Amino acid sequence: MLGTAFVKGMQGDGKYRKTDATLKHFAVHSGPEGIRHSFNSVVSEKDLRETYLWAFKYCIDNAEPAAVMGAYNRLNGEPCCGSKTLLQDILCDEWGFDGYIVSDCGAVCDFHTHHRVTEDAAESAALAVNNGCIMNCGAEYAYLIAAIARGLVSEETITKAVEKLFEARYRLGMFDDDCEYNDIPLDVIECKEHMETNLKMAQESVVLLKNDGILPLKGTEHIAVIGPNADDVSVLLGNYNGTPSRYSTILKGIQDKASGHITYAKGCDISNSNSPHIPFEEAIIAARNADVVILCMGLNTLLEGEAGDAYNADYSGDKRDLELPPCQMRLYDAVIAQGKPTVFFNVTGSCTNLSRQDKECNAVLQVFYSGAMGGEAVADILFGNVSPSGRLPVTFYESIDDLPPFEDYSMENRTYKFFKGKPVYEFGYGLTYSNITENWIDDKTVEIENKGYIDTAYSVLRYEYIPHKNLCGFKKIFLKAG
Amino acid sequence: MLGTAFVKGMQGDGKYRKTDATLKHFAVHSGPEGIRHSFNSVVSEKDLRETYLWAFKYCIDNAEPAAVMGAYNRLNGEPCCGSKTLLQDILCDEWGFDGYIVSDCGAVCDFHTHHRVTEDAAESAALAVNNGCIMNCGAEYAYLIAAIARGLVSEETITKAVEKLFEARYRLGMFDDDCEYNDIPLDVIECKEHMETNLKMAQESVVLLKNDGILPLKGTEHIAVIGPNADDVSVLLGNYNGTPSRYSTILKGIQDKASGHITYAKGCDISNSNSPHIPFEEAIIAARNADVVILCMGLNTLLEGEAGDAYNADYSGDKRDLELPPCQMRLYDAVIAQGKPTVFFNVTGSCTNLSRQDKECNAVLQVFYSGAMGGEAVADILFGNVSPSGRLPVTFYESIDDLPPFEDYSMENRTYKFFKGKPVYEFGYGLTYSNITENWIDDKTVEIENKGYIDTAYSVLRYEYIPHKNLCGFKKIFLKAG
Repeated sequence: MLGTAFVKGMQGDGKYRKTDATLKHFAVHSGPEGIRHSFNSVVSEKDLRETYLWAFKYCIDNAEPAAVMGAYNRLNGEPCCGSKTLLQDILCDEWGFDGYIVSDCGAVCDFHTHHRVTEDAAESAALAVNNGCIMNCGAEYAYLIAAIARGLVSEETITKAVEKLFEARYRLGMFDDDCEYNDIPLDVIECKEHMETNLKMAQESVVLLKNDGILPLKGTEHIAVIGPNADDVSVLLGNYNGTPSRYSTILKGIQDKASGHITYAKGCDISNSNSPHIPFEEAIIAARNADVVILCMGLNTLLEGEAGDAYNADYSGDKRDLELPPCQMRLYDAVIAQGKPTVFFNVTGSCTNLSRQDKECNAVLQVFYSGAMGGEAVADILFGNVSPSGRLPVTFYESIDDLPPFEDYSMENRTYKFFKGKPVYEFGYGLTYSNITENWIDDKTVEIENKGYIDTAYSVLRYEYIPHKNLCGFKKIFLKAG
Repeated sequence: MLGTAFVKGMQGDGKYRKTDATLKHFAVHSGPEGIRHSFNSVVSEKDLRETYLWAFKYCIDNAEPAAVMGAYNRLNGEPCCGSKTLLQDILCDEWGFDGYIVSDCGAVCDFHTHHRVTEDAAESAALAVNNGCIMNCGAEYAYLIAAIARGLVSEETITKAVEKLFEARYRLGMFDDDCEYNDIPLDVIECKEHMETNLKMAQESVVLLKNDGILPLKGTEHIAVIGPNADDVSVLLGNYNGTPSRYSTILKGIQDKASGHITYAKGCDISNSNSPHIPFEEAIIAARNADVVILCMGLNTLLEGEAGDAYNADYSGDKRDLELPPCQMRLYDAVIAQGKPTVFFNVTGSCTNLSRQDKECNAVLQVFYSGAMGGEAVADILFGNVSPSGRLPVTFYESIDDLPPFEDYSMENRTYKFFKGKPVYEFGYGLTYSNITENWIDDKTVEIENKGYIDTAYSVLRYEYIPHKNLCGFKKIFLKAG
């Protein structure tokens, strides 16, 4: 449903398409990143349909995306960007997708260099085009002339492919003078309306995981803001990001919205195990002298990112486990030992083990990579200008030991649907500052009441049991206090 | 003279020493960084005395620093941290230095592992201590017991060394309860007075190298701020830095002080030759739509820094040449090609080749690593709130081809004193926004007049010719317009 809204927004509803939205990566790969160019995902028909393909089909049915991008891996033996089963049989024939299919960058080259299912570039190009992958991010399609000469692909197939791609360009208004989107002025970038939307999205994305009553803060306290993710713009931006000219780190947001004294201490680098001694000592002194400690820890896009971008080169951008880097946990131990009221911000793009924080901190918040206004949003939550209303979109496990191996694509014992263990925080979990009750009248009808004293947005989640638990609807509403 | 003021400020003038200031690195090494642990600097007695040791002696005579740190390299064959000539004969006997001498980290270990002037750790430790290097950053002094047993060093020498080091600790008030510096409160950090001093220092550090009249800007222009050093806190901080909780990048400073529209485009990474295409295009569009372009380029502490910290690992923190990284020069070319009035900020800690900027840009400013208030300071200069008054403290050469090899420590054809070529900007160069005249009455007396319309600070430099040009005095004064 989120993807559908995203695609509709990207493509617009004018005479021309605003942009071509591309669903990716089709299909069945989420790691390990390091072996994605040769990996073969093996999944059952049931898991394929119910889990891995479900959201693609929903989005295609409801938002008509212009394109789909094939994945790097093989699926049950066939390389995704040249898979008859995936591209022809399921995507085009069964689902009736009539957009275009594009390869991930280098994926067609992988056919002969890594998957070894073809002999050379001409065979790879032909396999991809014959199965509908008509646009290549790579150089192999220069060999299509050779492929025609060798009888691997027909000229008619290529003509149809080129026509389809030019149709897309026509639909984008690239050959017309009256495309309304050409007139969008530069100053729409970071305009007031966009910044406000950005702030609202960031506010609503914060998930309150624990609160013993310490939050919201008054704002008059002497606050020590500690940790490597407190004043780092990169943890606002994630990756594949634009570069904002104005932004608010978490530290900046707190400084701007607090009325009491703020002390900042970085404490340690995000992951350098040889962090210098002095920042560590500064953090302890800062904690000792404060009324409240805000600990900002977590990961960044270099610790959990795409292979090639990440500097945890041994793991190609995958996390090794669910723990925060050791230098951060040493800082955590030292700060917690000061015995001050402590609020923990877990600034990551994914699950980390928060079991200790859940026991030892007074409040725990999950802050995803929250954009240019992230710091302002977090401060609004911290000081109660806005009540948190986010819900976890993934399960927060305690340990990878609770899960099947990374290379095993069976859904058994994975996700909130099939996990048999006890997570630290379950999928869909998230608190507000108020007291909300749900009274379900029937499967689809619920009365919701705000019995607390604080206005808050609230996310209603509707589950079905088929027989596993399955989220089948959600809606965000705003509830006045009382 | 700068070092003398620094030492006096660090050590204070109270009953106890505020901190122990340490002069370093003694002596004669400024690269190559990569071979510093085994390098042998060869210099003449004249160059040693007139150039390499002069400032050490001046500072010791005038500020009584508590300590001196030995360098990694050998000097004329002797490792500096164990050099009888340097430490005993010159520093202690000739100059009468009675502080303590400390090794650079790992330098004593270098004696046997890299310089190969001793056989083992005991011999290295003995050589250092016997020559007055009584404190070791390293583990070798654990072998002093063995060294005594082997007759390499006397117990009396070690007793004297320990006494001297404890004297230093007593002088720091570490064993007394009445040390006034223990009462400095935490909130003196980043207090108003310090921030103001910080801002003033940053303003005075900016050097205006060219101005065709474009500066100061009115502030009402549509300004495009472009380049990798525009919005990067690391280029404010240099290295061996604290972590400010509040700071102003150059972009932020300009945004805060301008009244016109500001567009920002990073354009490229500081040194990644595979910079993505989109930021580059953004920069061109930003330039095309602006009245004035501010190009913020340069280096950072990872491109010109200490071996081990730098990520230009092939050069161990040394610059390969005087050029800006190729990706920045590609961006420079593309932006200059837009033909807009352009102000170039060279944000570096050292000389780069600015010959093209001097010809092609309307104004050129050298911005060193200018601290937490650097962006605000630069904006004050840009918009004329403050007239620039900095002077270049080093020669800005055009190419390393104009200079002797890096490993050659002879002063011939080096620095403003002995360089025979034509630099892009000479040592001591620096403009103001006003029109200042100097009328020298005699060698030591000068009348200075501000004939322009703008108040400005002005740095007077006094040179002698002995027979080479030699700076022998400087003073900064403030001159009202007219």
